[in-house]
Amino acid sequence: MELGPPGGSGPAEPGPRLRGLRGADAAASASSLSRFGAEAGCRASAVAAVLPAGGSGERMGVPTPKQFCPILERPLISYTLQALERVSWIKDIIVAVTRENMETMKGIIQRYQHKRISLVEAGVTRHRSIFNGLKALAEDQPNCRLSKPEVVIIHDAVRPFVEEDVLLKVVTAAQEHGASGAIRPLVSTVISPSADSCLDHSLERARYRASEMPQAFLFDVIYDAYQQCSDYDLEFGTECLHLALKYSHIKAKLVEGSPDLWKVTYKRDLYAAESIIKERISQKVCVVMDTKEDEEHVGHCLEEMLKTELNHVKVTSGQDLQQIILEQCYNFVCVNVMTSDFEETQRLLNMVEESNLSILYPVVVISVHFLDYESVPLGQKMEKVMQIREFAKEAKKRNILLSGLLIYFPQRAFNSTMCYFVRSLIIKLRERLGGKKDVDRHG
Amino acid sequence: MELGPPGGSGPAEPGPRLRGLRGADAAASASSLSRFGAEAGCRASAVAAVLPAGGSGERMGVPTPKQFCPILERPLISYTLQALERVSWIKDIIVAVTRENMETMKGIIQRYQHKRISLVEAGVTRHRSIFNGLKALAEDQPNCRLSKPEVVIIHDAVRPFVEEDVLLKVVTAAQEHGASGAIRPLVSTVISPSADSCLDHSLERARYRASEMPQAFLFDVIYDAYQQCSDYDLEFGTECLHLALKYSHIKAKLVEGSPDLWKVTYKRDLYAAESIIKERISQKVCVVMDTKEDEEHVGHCLEEMLKTELNHVKVTSGQDLQQIILEQCYNFVCVNVMTSDFEETQRLLNMVEESNLSILYPVVVISVHFLDYESVPLGQKMEKVMQIREFAKEAKKRNILLSGLLIYFPQRAFNSTMCYFVRSLIIKLRERLGGKKDVDRHG
Repeated sequence: MELGPPGGSGPAEPGPRLRGLRGADAAASASSLSRFGAEAGCRASAVAAVLPAGGSGERMGVPTPKQFCPILERPLISYTLQALERVSWIKDIIVAVTRENMETMKGIIQRYQHKRISLVEAGVTRHRSIFNGLKALAEDQPNCRLSKPEVVIIHDAVRPFVEEDVLLKVVTAAQEHGASGAIRPLVSTVISPSADSCLDHSLERARYRASEMPQAFLFDVIYDAYQQCSDYDLEFGTECLHLALKYSHIKAKLVEGSPDLWKVTYKRDLYAAESIIKERISQKVCVVMDTKEDEEHVGHCLEEMLKTELNHVKVTSGQDLQQIILEQCYNFVCVNVMTSDFEETQRLLNMVEESNLSILYPVVVISVHFLDYESVPLGQKMEKVMQIREFAKEAKKRNILLSGLLIYFPQRAFNSTMCYFVRSLIIKLRERLGGKKDVDRHG
Repeated sequence: MELGPPGGSGPAEPGPRLRGLRGADAAASASSLSRFGAEAGCRASAVAAVLPAGGSGERMGVPTPKQFCPILERPLISYTLQALERVSWIKDIIVAVTRENMETMKGIIQRYQHKRISLVEAGVTRHRSIFNGLKALAEDQPNCRLSKPEVVIIHDAVRPFVEEDVLLKVVTAAQEHGASGAIRPLVSTVISPSADSCLDHSLERARYRASEMPQAFLFDVIYDAYQQCSDYDLEFGTECLHLALKYSHIKAKLVEGSPDLWKVTYKRDLYAAESIIKERISQKVCVVMDTKEDEEHVGHCLEEMLKTELNHVKVTSGQDLQQIILEQCYNFVCVNVMTSDFEETQRLLNMVEESNLSILYPVVVISVHFLDYESVPLGQKMEKVMQIREFAKEAKKRNILLSGLLIYFPQRAFNSTMCYFVRSLIIKLRERLGGKKDVDRHG
């Protein structure tokens, strides 16, 4: 069995410079957003988000707090910030971090060019951190740069796959009901132990739900609740919806969320998150090849094989490359046909670099070169290997993973050599990109 | 951050032929087992396990029921069976599968050489499937080959990482209390919705636990409960501990389980399981090299670099290879030093094949060959490429992933070429094996 793509659409849209340039992925959710689009004007300054990120990640069993654990070398929280940032109607994002992680957090914001972020100091518990975030948004704070929103979203730093769709649902429900939160079915039965660790009673699973994030509140509803609540609530409570009910007497509207909302809690969740991200960014492969002057070129054979073996392969001669990059393709096979050196690869690398595409995710480029076995001396081949190595070293500094593939073919045994190497290329591609597939064993 | 190994010890021990041959991994848990070892005699015929595996996997969002979803090409349920099989004191394992999956299940048992398995037909609900499993073990059934156990373990087909340790704990507690089950802390707050999907109330998270598997019962306790319980229980119930309480008046003892007990429920859980298994089987690499007659051989340089870059590298000249295979090393780098053909690799492949090591997990073998740039003609090199290809094709049929690495070095530029190729080898190894690491970007 090969798994289809996970729940969501494409990868979360990269931040600042590419914002607004959404590809085909966006079309699918356009209808659900159009309703909101009409209202967007009046809500433009009305929604903010608070992200408590002061946790220590003790359940993960690693020294780094889980929100700072790297996935493909980028900290988890950066993915979550990106998911919130791409929602243009969230005006401010308040992140609560502990004093010792403040500089780390500032570094992350700078490196991944996050915008609209304000930092506040985390409290010793989750509720205290959220309260600090709300205080920063309240009008009665001195020297406050932020303005009080109508609605505030509360989300977790460790739920990176939140979609605009569910954010919209909880915000709309909060406007109507005062409070709202995403829920999911329970995976396990919930039981209550007695003092001696024996079963006291079990709950009927169908009557209960897991309370997940995001949640949204009319700002006054949740801020009033936090201002009234006891130290015991702030120390031991876990549920914002409960505070809204207890102190503001608001029964939150519950919204069914997708499985993607799950919270990265254990080490295995990091593996899962990495695989999901890898799968999302490896769905599209662009083959760059300019063979129009030589229709018989072996490159065409490569193109056909790639189309057969991989999904979502686009082939371009280069004219529409800019558009493909803007649509956030992260994988390129550049077939150097017309020149024996790196001109075409270099041109592609320059375009990728100018686009800032590789700031948020690594971009993979495989530079393919055909060398005729009979006419190219071996020394020239070795030279090319060294050249690719130098190029790759430079590209890596810019988060571009460049590999070279020299197809050095004896004219007579062309077909079998070709098949062999193309298969190698595909294996290489999939191994580096695919979270899930193990092509070797099918090949 | 690089993650350490996950909770468990090494990979679950492969089935029949290797059973009893446990490596260093086993030593760690030996102390906790010794207490049980003394009792094992009296319990030899006392414990059976029932595995309901009739689910449709609707939450996974794929057509294959989740227990049959492949992880590294092997169905999930086979990993779970292996985890139970390696516990020698579990005498019988009853698996309940639907009629349409009966042949699939038989095929899995045959292919992966599972033993001590009996199949029964699943019911339409989980409780009915478990009841069918228990009936097969009860003495009052006609023509029953199985004998009634003192204690029965109930486990899920989709929890592949269960350790002997927790099985022992629930069985011991069941002997004392009549019933026992593994629990875990709640990850999310549990709430109760009202009829109009608003929050009715939320539960105080610290007072509740998630009920997980395995569970264990005195056979009579749980069988009596199932015989008494109502159709409503059988249709809508989810909790065996609840039945033992309601009908047999037994308060189950609750045992804290490890995070590894989690249930593969969503697609992301398959990713996580695959990464955990990959990480477990890639921890050890064995370098096979016989260079004693040539201490200056370049192979020693390779060995040094591998030791620096990879953990758990053992180097052997071949004498203790049998032992290393028995200790379940799944990764080999075979350096062909003394001969220019495949003799040494072939010898290793034969030994791996004879050991049946590759029945349960793929074995990776990288065959390294050194060719002197100046004395070996190019044609001979191409021939070797073709030879490796043929070998790899044959090996793949036996679940051995063979790759060739030709190190074709110009004598003058030896060092840089060597470094380049060794790095390639390591990258290749890690990419194929490592669930987590992305060496390229550190290199």
